[in-house]
Amino acid sequence: MDSGVSDAMARPAHEDVRAAARRIAPWVQRTPVLRSSGLDRLAGAELFFKCENLQRVGAFKFRGASNAVLSLDAARAARGVVTQSSGNHGAALALAARLRGIPCHVVVPRNAPAVKLEAIRAFGAAITPCEPNMAARNAACAELQSRTGAELVHPFDDARVIAGQGTATLELLEQAGALDAIVAPVGGGGLLSGTALAAHGIDPRVDIVGAEPEQARDAHDSLATGVRIVDRVPETICDGLRGHLGVLGFDILRAHRAAVLLASEAAIVAAMRLVFERLKVVIEPSAAVPLAVVLGQPARFAGKRVGIVLSGGNVDLGALPWQGGAR
Amino acid sequence: MDSGVSDAMARPAHEDVRAAARRIAPWVQRTPVLRSSGLDRLAGAELFFKCENLQRVGAFKFRGASNAVLSLDAARAARGVVTQSSGNHGAALALAARLRGIPCHVVVPRNAPAVKLEAIRAFGAAITPCEPNMAARNAACAELQSRTGAELVHPFDDARVIAGQGTATLELLEQAGALDAIVAPVGGGGLLSGTALAAHGIDPRVDIVGAEPEQARDAHDSLATGVRIVDRVPETICDGLRGHLGVLGFDILRAHRAAVLLASEAAIVAAMRLVFERLKVVIEPSAAVPLAVVLGQPARFAGKRVGIVLSGGNVDLGALPWQGGAR
Repeated sequence: MDSGVSDAMARPAHEDVRAAARRIAPWVQRTPVLRSSGLDRLAGAELFFKCENLQRVGAFKFRGASNAVLSLDAARAARGVVTQSSGNHGAALALAARLRGIPCHVVVPRNAPAVKLEAIRAFGAAITPCEPNMAARNAACAELQSRTGAELVHPFDDARVIAGQGTATLELLEQAGALDAIVAPVGGGGLLSGTALAAHGIDPRVDIVGAEPEQARDAHDSLATGVRIVDRVPETICDGLRGHLGVLGFDILRAHRAAVLLASEAAIVAAMRLVFERLKVVIEPSAAVPLAVVLGQPARFAGKRVGIVLSGGNVDLGALPWQGGAR
Repeated sequence: MDSGVSDAMARPAHEDVRAAARRIAPWVQRTPVLRSSGLDRLAGAELFFKCENLQRVGAFKFRGASNAVLSLDAARAARGVVTQSSGNHGAALALAARLRGIPCHVVVPRNAPAVKLEAIRAFGAAITPCEPNMAARNAACAELQSRTGAELVHPFDDARVIAGQGTATLELLEQAGALDAIVAPVGGGGLLSGTALAAHGIDPRVDIVGAEPEQARDAHDSLATGVRIVDRVPETICDGLRGHLGVLGFDILRAHRAAVLLASEAAIVAAMRLVFERLKVVIEPSAAVPLAVVLGQPARFAGKRVGIVLSGGNVDLGALPWQGGAR
């Protein structure tokens, strides 16, 4: 077995991303990179879209969850895994656990949408409902851990998860060749910090850019002030980006001098529709933020080769945000 | 230069598909093949989705148009190309002509949607409006041909176009390995007959299945009766499948013993939404008919390896058919 990151809160390195890529190769899709000459003209740049919306479970989250599950030795794995999530990470961990044949517990707030519960349950995880606040979620997770001995796999503040998310960027650089910048959404920071680790181990000059909704700008403000903000309640259409930057992500993004650019809700919806129309792929709002910031700051990206991570495609197709009154 | 099909109405062969693949390789996308374990379970079969919705211009039509344009010798090419189309073929021919640097004329009925006109015009073609009936369209085409000397490139009743459409299946068989059946939409028959030529030159046992809306079942009835039907006015959500089977397509599909299976409008809309939800790609209604027929006849495909051609992704995102009242 590969030597992996054994401590979930040790800061991962480029080699951990490489090890994760080897470890999860049998489970993950090597997702395609799409291009559009029309979008290139619109942006004044060469755009390479890494389609993690076509990943299993419909999101990059399956990479990190798989790496965490496959990093466990047999004895720890047998006791199962536990997490808290009302979104893609819960489903991703459930599928990874099912593929390894181990138990999975997901703590889900009582107000989570039924459709998300269904996805988690469909992969065979046990769901523990809790009150919709962070204290209750943490308490429920801790209780499950102590009762079952299951391993906690945090959605983003976990070195194994971060290393796994970085594997999308290893593939992107193989597929697209050298890039000047890579833009990924930033919520908890797992994807963006994995992106930085992966890219800078290959080319330290790549500009690492987080894309964040203006209405959920905690990562932007945390990096600008040097103080990690954890006490806001953001309101944004991007349900995947409402969390706060984690401890590990904050640390890694500062070390890698990542920038964070902001986009309005209207710009995010417009970018989302452009991706549907021009690339013919389905994305969720969070995945549209990178294109929104690239189109919003043309001078910064003019003439450059820019990778964009389309992070996920799990969206309610009956209520797409450009349908009047749906939101 | 490859020896190509010189006569547009000579019946093409497998080798013409091979030649087309070599000819158009620099212009076309090698589109990905997507899979979904959820859709496999639903179908009780192994499904391989060839994503021609991710082709340039958003449809397989770019393959046939490119092959026709690249098959012209320099003198004929210099006089340009002409076609009649209110849909994807017009935009595809316009782009192919622009890439070769030759004139392109597209005859478009006056009632064609503005958005389709825009796509054709954006690629630099000259648009000739005409009355919305077949006699007026043919007359306008003939007048343009005689005035300009431009080469007619029919949307489907053209050997060069049929050979080009078949190249999607060459790729599919390389990507997926051996298949028991390949299912493609059938309208004019260009795609399905190219599919038959491509597949049977590699493995004569592949079951070639056309997928057609019940409300536009002329190909089904033509093959069943042996008489090509050309006088119906079908009403279906599948705007790409309202035409009648061409002379060449009818001939090829009979020789290759192609089957045609039918799907209701409701089944087509349900299959379209399933593709959005599970595969995370955008398709137009015509492209959903193959999945609709596979899910509608589970016994026929049980346990088999089935290729499905997702033929295009050009759809009005503001009026998706599962949005109540939009159609």
